[in-house]
Amino acid sequence: MSIKRCDKNPLISPKDVKPSQPGFRVDCAMNAAVATFNGETLLLLRVAESVISDNPDIIKIPVVEEKNGCWDVVVKEVNKKIENYDFSDSRVIRVKPGDRTVVYLTSLSHFRLARSSDGVNFIVDETPFMFPDTKYETFGIEDPRITFIDGRYYINYTAVSPIGVTTALAVTDDFTQAERLGIIFGPDNKDMCIFPEKINGKYHALHRPTPKDIGTPDIWLAKSDNMLYWGDHEHFLGASNDDWDNYKVGGGAQVIKTDKGWLQIYHGVDSKQRYSLGAILMDLDNPLKIIAKSKKALLEPETKYEIEGFFGNVVFTCGALIENNILKIYYGAADEVMALAEINLLDLWKHLGV
Amino acid sequence: MSIKRCDKNPLISPKDVKPSQPGFRVDCAMNAAVATFNGETLLLLRVAESVISDNPDIIKIPVVEEKNGCWDVVVKEVNKKIENYDFSDSRVIRVKPGDRTVVYLTSLSHFRLARSSDGVNFIVDETPFMFPDTKYETFGIEDPRITFIDGRYYINYTAVSPIGVTTALAVTDDFTQAERLGIIFGPDNKDMCIFPEKINGKYHALHRPTPKDIGTPDIWLAKSDNMLYWGDHEHFLGASNDDWDNYKVGGGAQVIKTDKGWLQIYHGVDSKQRYSLGAILMDLDNPLKIIAKSKKALLEPETKYEIEGFFGNVVFTCGALIENNILKIYYGAADEVMALAEINLLDLWKHLGV
Repeated sequence: MSIKRCDKNPLISPKDVKPSQPGFRVDCAMNAAVATFNGETLLLLRVAESVISDNPDIIKIPVVEEKNGCWDVVVKEVNKKIENYDFSDSRVIRVKPGDRTVVYLTSLSHFRLARSSDGVNFIVDETPFMFPDTKYETFGIEDPRITFIDGRYYINYTAVSPIGVTTALAVTDDFTQAERLGIIFGPDNKDMCIFPEKINGKYHALHRPTPKDIGTPDIWLAKSDNMLYWGDHEHFLGASNDDWDNYKVGGGAQVIKTDKGWLQIYHGVDSKQRYSLGAILMDLDNPLKIIAKSKKALLEPETKYEIEGFFGNVVFTCGALIENNILKIYYGAADEVMALAEINLLDLWKHLGV
Repeated sequence: MSIKRCDKNPLISPKDVKPSQPGFRVDCAMNAAVATFNGETLLLLRVAESVISDNPDIIKIPVVEEKNGCWDVVVKEVNKKIENYDFSDSRVIRVKPGDRTVVYLTSLSHFRLARSSDGVNFIVDETPFMFPDTKYETFGIEDPRITFIDGRYYINYTAVSPIGVTTALAVTDDFTQAERLGIIFGPDNKDMCIFPEKINGKYHALHRPTPKDIGTPDIWLAKSDNMLYWGDHEHFLGASNDDWDNYKVGGGAQVIKTDKGWLQIYHGVDSKQRYSLGAILMDLDNPLKIIAKSKKALLEPETKYEIEGFFGNVVFTCGALIENNILKIYYGAADEVMALAEINLLDLWKHLGV
């Protein structure tokens, strides 16, 4: 196996992204969807911002609230000395040590476009492409995936609010603006990966519900006539007995069509909360049939920018492309920066044993 | 308010139900869907069975497993002296005290028909109408609701397995057999209540996802073109500040059309795990608009058969009918027996303040 990281990694870092408003700090420029449009490679970045606080005891929390029919940013304050919250996870504030219930996220995520003519050197837009502005998005919008279907760019993403973690859909034709199409999976659901064309007359997608009392966070397959209403849910893949994805799994990049089958680059997590990437190859006529999957990780956290960051030991993809028989995986590293790794398809098939 | 319990309550008890197989004991005959068919009132009972064990230290667990392409009952054994499981909840066995993860259910549920010419005196079928037989049902099928739509009887129910708690759909025309239509909501989801006709060209349903990390078990509203694929999810109702439903809520009976709006009899749970019933009235054109809802419980556990049983202090409905301006609520009591309570519609509107 010879997956190769780009020499210019990380391609995009928080310092390359202008905060969306005064007083905000960009913590993460990560987990981007990818698309090609008008000869350019576009990354739709998840930009996570926190609020600068002068007092180390005070955490300032950015959320979105409705005021007079508009959704605007509001800053909440949490005093670490007063509240008995659990601050041990850099991404969230939990109600108390030992209780997983989340009170706040530490940052608010929006989507920002970055554009490139060579797929490596990106210029990041100065302003957001999509910013949270519904009651399902008050804690942010996260981890977009773009799928080009029937001539339009569909963007599915995670909408987070105190109501829950849901999967939402939007669509754009030209990347000037996106039309929101609503919530397509209720809570808890994330990591949806849409197939780029219908199979046997139905749209297909992978999605990742997180059950509470019974079951584990596994990948499911669903079907649809219109991409708005989904059903015929079937269990697709859970954690394996292999080392790298034995704790949980979730969808990664949008599904890509290849001669050998539908290709899905997904993330696996081990018991040490180490996020790696692997590949699944599915039968073209029946994607429930897995032809092959990674026994070992295709890409795992190894470099400094993957091991150290906002949340370390993470490589996580929301988008990949095949160009000239090279699979280009754009991925978030350490929940902080964007990076690129490439593998020749012949080497990928070898990795998968097909 | 003058809701009145039937003098003949409980209408059906476990002793009235023949076990589905030798060595099984019927623990519960509860949470029935209701329908009228060929001049009869039909209850589709959830019958929960456990396995008789001669050794008090050994709990025998009935599950369904695949053997040579068929799904059959298999009995597992758990030794209470050896395993450090949490046996404190009569309904489930948890992995350990303090950890909510469920290892087994203590019983296996199937569906059984009971028939009546007067809606009060029922004769229970000797054999199951539906028995668990897919990989999503290996821990049982629970809490059916029947909705008569477009001339057919749709049965939605909770399918439970180690994969998760999902909502499944089936359909019957004549109650001789049901055709399974698959999983319509992935885990965790239960308590779906379908509207009996389309609104603005779309099927509608209430459903109850249970999120894990963020959010509470609330009722959502979803739409569909075909009842198989659902979407356009919108948050509908969470726990209130009233005494009786301040912990969690979930759908109850199938939705019923009235002159004043769509009627939903739902369950509310308080902080002491006491399950009561209340009513919601929704706008006929826009069911997301709640016209009125119960400030106090419409029916709460008061009688012996509601307070004491397999899981006490529970009244829980999966089906109701309106006949001659009387709302007839069929409900499970103490997770063990079936009962009936009636209220005049004029009294119901008074209760709701409409």
